[in-house]
Amino acid sequence: MNNFQFQNPVKILFGEGKIAEIAHEIAAGSKVMMTYGGGSIKRNGIYDQVIAALSQCQVIEFGGIEANPDYDTLMRAISLGKSEEIDFILAVGGGSIIDGTKFIAAGINYDGDPWDFITGKAKVPTALPFGVVLTLPATGSEMNNGAVISRRATKEKYPFHNDNGFPTFSVLDPTAVYSLPHRQVANGLIDTFIHTTEQYLTTAGSPKVMDRFAEGVLRTLIEIAPRLTAEGDRKYADCADFMMAATMGLNGFLAMGVDEDWATHMIGHELTALHGLDHGVTLAIVWEGTMHIMRREKEAKLLQYAKEVWGITEGSADEIIDKAIDSTEHFFQSLGVKTRLSDYGIGEDTIATIRSRFEMRKWNLGEHGIVTPDKVEAILRCRL
Amino acid sequence: MNNFQFQNPVKILFGEGKIAEIAHEIAAGSKVMMTYGGGSIKRNGIYDQVIAALSQCQVIEFGGIEANPDYDTLMRAISLGKSEEIDFILAVGGGSIIDGTKFIAAGINYDGDPWDFITGKAKVPTALPFGVVLTLPATGSEMNNGAVISRRATKEKYPFHNDNGFPTFSVLDPTAVYSLPHRQVANGLIDTFIHTTEQYLTTAGSPKVMDRFAEGVLRTLIEIAPRLTAEGDRKYADCADFMMAATMGLNGFLAMGVDEDWATHMIGHELTALHGLDHGVTLAIVWEGTMHIMRREKEAKLLQYAKEVWGITEGSADEIIDKAIDSTEHFFQSLGVKTRLSDYGIGEDTIATIRSRFEMRKWNLGEHGIVTPDKVEAILRCRL
Repeated sequence: MNNFQFQNPVKILFGEGKIAEIAHEIAAGSKVMMTYGGGSIKRNGIYDQVIAALSQCQVIEFGGIEANPDYDTLMRAISLGKSEEIDFILAVGGGSIIDGTKFIAAGINYDGDPWDFITGKAKVPTALPFGVVLTLPATGSEMNNGAVISRRATKEKYPFHNDNGFPTFSVLDPTAVYSLPHRQVANGLIDTFIHTTEQYLTTAGSPKVMDRFAEGVLRTLIEIAPRLTAEGDRKYADCADFMMAATMGLNGFLAMGVDEDWATHMIGHELTALHGLDHGVTLAIVWEGTMHIMRREKEAKLLQYAKEVWGITEGSADEIIDKAIDSTEHFFQSLGVKTRLSDYGIGEDTIATIRSRFEMRKWNLGEHGIVTPDKVEAILRCRL
Repeated sequence: MNNFQFQNPVKILFGEGKIAEIAHEIAAGSKVMMTYGGGSIKRNGIYDQVIAALSQCQVIEFGGIEANPDYDTLMRAISLGKSEEIDFILAVGGGSIIDGTKFIAAGINYDGDPWDFITGKAKVPTALPFGVVLTLPATGSEMNNGAVISRRATKEKYPFHNDNGFPTFSVLDPTAVYSLPHRQVANGLIDTFIHTTEQYLTTAGSPKVMDRFAEGVLRTLIEIAPRLTAEGDRKYADCADFMMAATMGLNGFLAMGVDEDWATHMIGHELTALHGLDHGVTLAIVWEGTMHIMRREKEAKLLQYAKEVWGITEGSADEIIDKAIDSTEHFFQSLGVKTRLSDYGIGEDTIATIRSRFEMRKWNLGEHGIVTPDKVEAILRCRL
């Protein structure tokens, strides 16, 4: 078990009707920039609830933030926020809106180019306070201090973290899940699943409580996924379990004292940056490769995963691991996601590009840097 | 699933050697009151580590806080803290020291009688900031805003909570467990176990992630308890798992959206107040009674508990529940704790006293107030 530090100050307001409570969380008279995406919140009623809750504030809207929020879009929001001298930002959306808002909140208080935060040239000195109304369970960004920002002009996508990156509050109203398209639910389930395995399928010797928590999130996802992706109305309890799982999956609760991986995510980011694939889809493609290629290093945890999550105990170690990997891939496919590079017309060229990018950046990924560029190539090659 | 609000600002510093880091958490030059108990910290080296870490501060010591911290003792600490005009309190100990420190921190800033906080006559307006060095995993007080205070003069023991009751930081160094007496380890394991069941063995329909988290804490305790209570040196990993389980068991992580019980605790508090029994012992006595008498109301969760925690699935519902209750009681007994009132010379008189106290206070306990004074009497009667 590793030594660790943990602190998470985010206030969670969970449940149907909780959007109204943001009136108590933002000072009356504040000038609030409301950030959102393509406008689905105007169709499902969330926009109206938020506007009603902000009746004591002045609201400046910035809509149109895209999936995988783009540097150029966010720079326009920063410019607007500076000229309007806003006091607070309210992100209404999923992970892309929240991540973009973290970049905006940091950039508004910064005179230089906030891309410096992404490349590590500068640390975020201060950030504007911001809150969240979550509409899509997936990234956990509503309760952590991380974000992932894309730059389409250079086909790049990078994570960044900062001490000022925690929302002051996040509203989690499960009814937002009722109207989500199948594709977004599938992506959110996969994203949550793989956030959890990135913190779990690493080395033996993690705190036992963390192992059980991680297995609990994974088992929950496997249980609720068929109902959430079936035809017909979704039930409140399933939507609530989904939202809980997504938030708990990446708020630091599972990371205490454990080794973390994140190779699947970092490789997946490249597939999005180069080909525009949905984040969840990239994870479903890459995960099996990471587990297959790194199976010796991860053997103890893969066997534990097979037993505790899938109930697989029969056979040799390799047979058990194969069955667990297959069960997982079938789970992703059962959500309607294709899990091969060739399904998306991606081939050798892209593998070579990703390998050379990681070599250039001198990135060794995974727990203890065990996923070298050689391994990355092998991981992607077995996903052709 | 219930609506809920969650926020926990405590910074956790976990691992061997972390005591030295409190030097970064308390401003140099501060006047710090260090609270502790009977002096075990002087024998196991923790006192010396804390003093070394506080080399840039002025330290005022207040030792001698007893188990089940007493109002009179704590009032002396408040008096000392006021006259010395201290800036910060550092609790070095287990739940009793931390709980007592929460009362001191609230009382120092209050002109009236701080017993008003306990009876609900007054709310805590402000409190002095305080930190924790945990020496005994059990109560979870190191990461929550609750405390339990005793008043020996009137044989009373009550919990209180307040918004200013969170430590600013807590150091969790598992090596503190190495030298703990068997009795304290047994009590801490039982206390953590029953904190968890108070938040788990209630009604069906809790968030699935919460159910899995709770079962994970319980399974961890059952797994590590035999090693922690055996003869011979304790291993770091077991001590760390114990400390993690105790803190996660009562820091709000398991309580999100769930119905909570706490009848076993409230009845147990009376046994301590009237007879001086260890808190953990009172829980081990009362728990079986609560589960036996409330088995119909708790049936769905007791069956789930039997299956997920003990692997019991054969038999009728009542047979399964009986086996799960028996397994739990055997677990407590395996730690060397006797679980009958008669083992401690306690009989009908005490049951009558507790019943009449609860009637006078108009207390209906348990989830949704289902544990009436009638039920309390029945619970205790089957523990004679």
